[in-house]
Amino acid sequence: MSARPTLESKVAVVMAGGKGTRFWPRSRSSKPKQFLAIAGEETLLHQTVRRLEGHFEPRHVFIVTTAELADETRRMLPELPLENILVEPEGRNTAPCLALSLVEIERRVPDGVMVVLSADHWIGDPEVFNEDVEIAVKHAVEARELVVFGIRPTYPESGYGYIEAEGSGTVQKVLAFREKPPLEVALQYLETGRHYWNAGMFVWTLADLREGLLQHCPEVLQPLDEWIKTGGHAATLPAAYGQLPQVAIDVALMEKAQNVALVPTRFRWSDVGSWPAAIGFHEADGEGNVVQGQAILLDVHNCAFFGGDRLIAASGLRDLIVVDEADALLICHRDQAQSVKKIVERLKQEGREDLL
Amino acid sequence: MSARPTLESKVAVVMAGGKGTRFWPRSRSSKPKQFLAIAGEETLLHQTVRRLEGHFEPRHVFIVTTAELADETRRMLPELPLENILVEPEGRNTAPCLALSLVEIERRVPDGVMVVLSADHWIGDPEVFNEDVEIAVKHAVEARELVVFGIRPTYPESGYGYIEAEGSGTVQKVLAFREKPPLEVALQYLETGRHYWNAGMFVWTLADLREGLLQHCPEVLQPLDEWIKTGGHAATLPAAYGQLPQVAIDVALMEKAQNVALVPTRFRWSDVGSWPAAIGFHEADGEGNVVQGQAILLDVHNCAFFGGDRLIAASGLRDLIVVDEADALLICHRDQAQSVKKIVERLKQEGREDLL
Repeated sequence: MSARPTLESKVAVVMAGGKGTRFWPRSRSSKPKQFLAIAGEETLLHQTVRRLEGHFEPRHVFIVTTAELADETRRMLPELPLENILVEPEGRNTAPCLALSLVEIERRVPDGVMVVLSADHWIGDPEVFNEDVEIAVKHAVEARELVVFGIRPTYPESGYGYIEAEGSGTVQKVLAFREKPPLEVALQYLETGRHYWNAGMFVWTLADLREGLLQHCPEVLQPLDEWIKTGGHAATLPAAYGQLPQVAIDVALMEKAQNVALVPTRFRWSDVGSWPAAIGFHEADGEGNVVQGQAILLDVHNCAFFGGDRLIAASGLRDLIVVDEADALLICHRDQAQSVKKIVERLKQEGREDLL
Repeated sequence: MSARPTLESKVAVVMAGGKGTRFWPRSRSSKPKQFLAIAGEETLLHQTVRRLEGHFEPRHVFIVTTAELADETRRMLPELPLENILVEPEGRNTAPCLALSLVEIERRVPDGVMVVLSADHWIGDPEVFNEDVEIAVKHAVEARELVVFGIRPTYPESGYGYIEAEGSGTVQKVLAFREKPPLEVALQYLETGRHYWNAGMFVWTLADLREGLLQHCPEVLQPLDEWIKTGGHAATLPAAYGQLPQVAIDVALMEKAQNVALVPTRFRWSDVGSWPAAIGFHEADGEGNVVQGQAILLDVHNCAFFGGDRLIAASGLRDLIVVDEADALLICHRDQAQSVKKIVERLKQEGREDLL
């Protein structure tokens, strides 16, 4: 189905369907993390697309998002062709998302090499990033392997999946994918120097993705191939999409495939996974406080205020995070940021859809 | 000028011109403490007037307020005759305020006995309060003395003036008024049992107030007498009022007069002077938290949330006061409530009249 891939036919697939409850009350179901400017002046989505400028043709940049977020995504990215915003009828994890991207892009760039990215990650060095992408694309085209980027761990994070690799060059052999480890295992991973964080960024030719899916998880591709054969109309997609298993691409493909390579990244990276992580992207004053919006602070240390139009006056505070939205206010200890998840759960239980 | 006073001719004068910056951001220059429901379901002003019901005729209840607050005060108290809302052209402390009340009420209730109250104090026992008022009124009428209520101190407050009295009955002889004492002196006062808090509540006949002012501070009354003689029109009041010295009734009259008696109060009293004081009037949950409005609390102890329409979600907090208004948010440690004053000062310096 696909023509012979070339270095020039690379396409970016930016997965932008995240729910993002961890930045409540700033993030909502209709305003997930990628729509927020929590790490810099621009939203993470804008940063992600800007980073590709000059390296990918606009018609080769695709965004995959959900029906709920599609309008806002199109509005935010007028520089992309409207038809490059691919719409999942519903979120069904990354394997269906990428299978849909595959059949959609095969129609337009049949010899494409797909660079899979996330819309809500921060990357510090765009030029280095694009150099690493080139290395991965070249390997995918020439060696016909599935390439995953590996982030060198800086601390024993137990919330990420790891990839064990072999070798020391710019392209390494993948030995195994490792699930989120307990802390003591994460510590061992950190010490080996052979384990990388799996940030969900991949490079492969369309042909190899097709072949891999058909071999290891055909049920995620076949209903979409049928859909294409019968015209590939938007109206009939939900029925086809609803048949796909809800599975991650790591499980559906990467953990099973043998032809997998790893490119260790050299750019700075963060998934900006929580309010404390977001604080790190803002300059603190002499007292360790970060202020977005207007604030009067008296005897306040090591606090972060993500405000809006309202004035925030604070006195005698330590180690707090304050997020001020029009309809909700979050005040939590820096060490309790994980409780945002519990708060969102509670709102769900209480039927407060207006706040979610 | 005044006829012979009787017990039936008692009038209440509720001083309601307070600025009230201590409850910022809930209190503003246009919405001082007496307009807030910070100690109970009703505003302090409403509570003050309700407390008099059945004991004072509505036409004998006067409110003295400033031009800025007059409209809202009239709106809040439709049960009072409109002309009973007396309007100070400007705030000039309590002696001018009471001199104006004197000349206004002499015109309507010439044999009046004036009961001076504050609009922004909390009183726990309305019936006991009215009994104490009766004792004071009776003494003012029969003994022709100036009566001050004395609150029995419960702790060594250094922010109040004290009154030293002699005797043990329901009416005592005043020996001296004492200014706000340093803490060690306040401790001594507490131990003597002869010192009372001066809450600025007085009872006197109109005739005795007139005589006392003419003797001890005629400059606070004579311009108003001239104003009455020339017709007492609203249009000419500001010029007359502007001539009055800015002085408290305690200094102008009470500290100098010899015919002063004290009625020790038996009702519970608070001037609700700060956010921590206000917290005491709300029922706390099992974790010591007070919540006004909607809140989701996780691992939160000994905090108070004075919210509004917005949801407040909090996690991992101790000993904080949160006051949430449409245009401003206060978060302060319970022990730092005095810093509200500094915050208000800062807003003045920054020209943020919109928030004051």
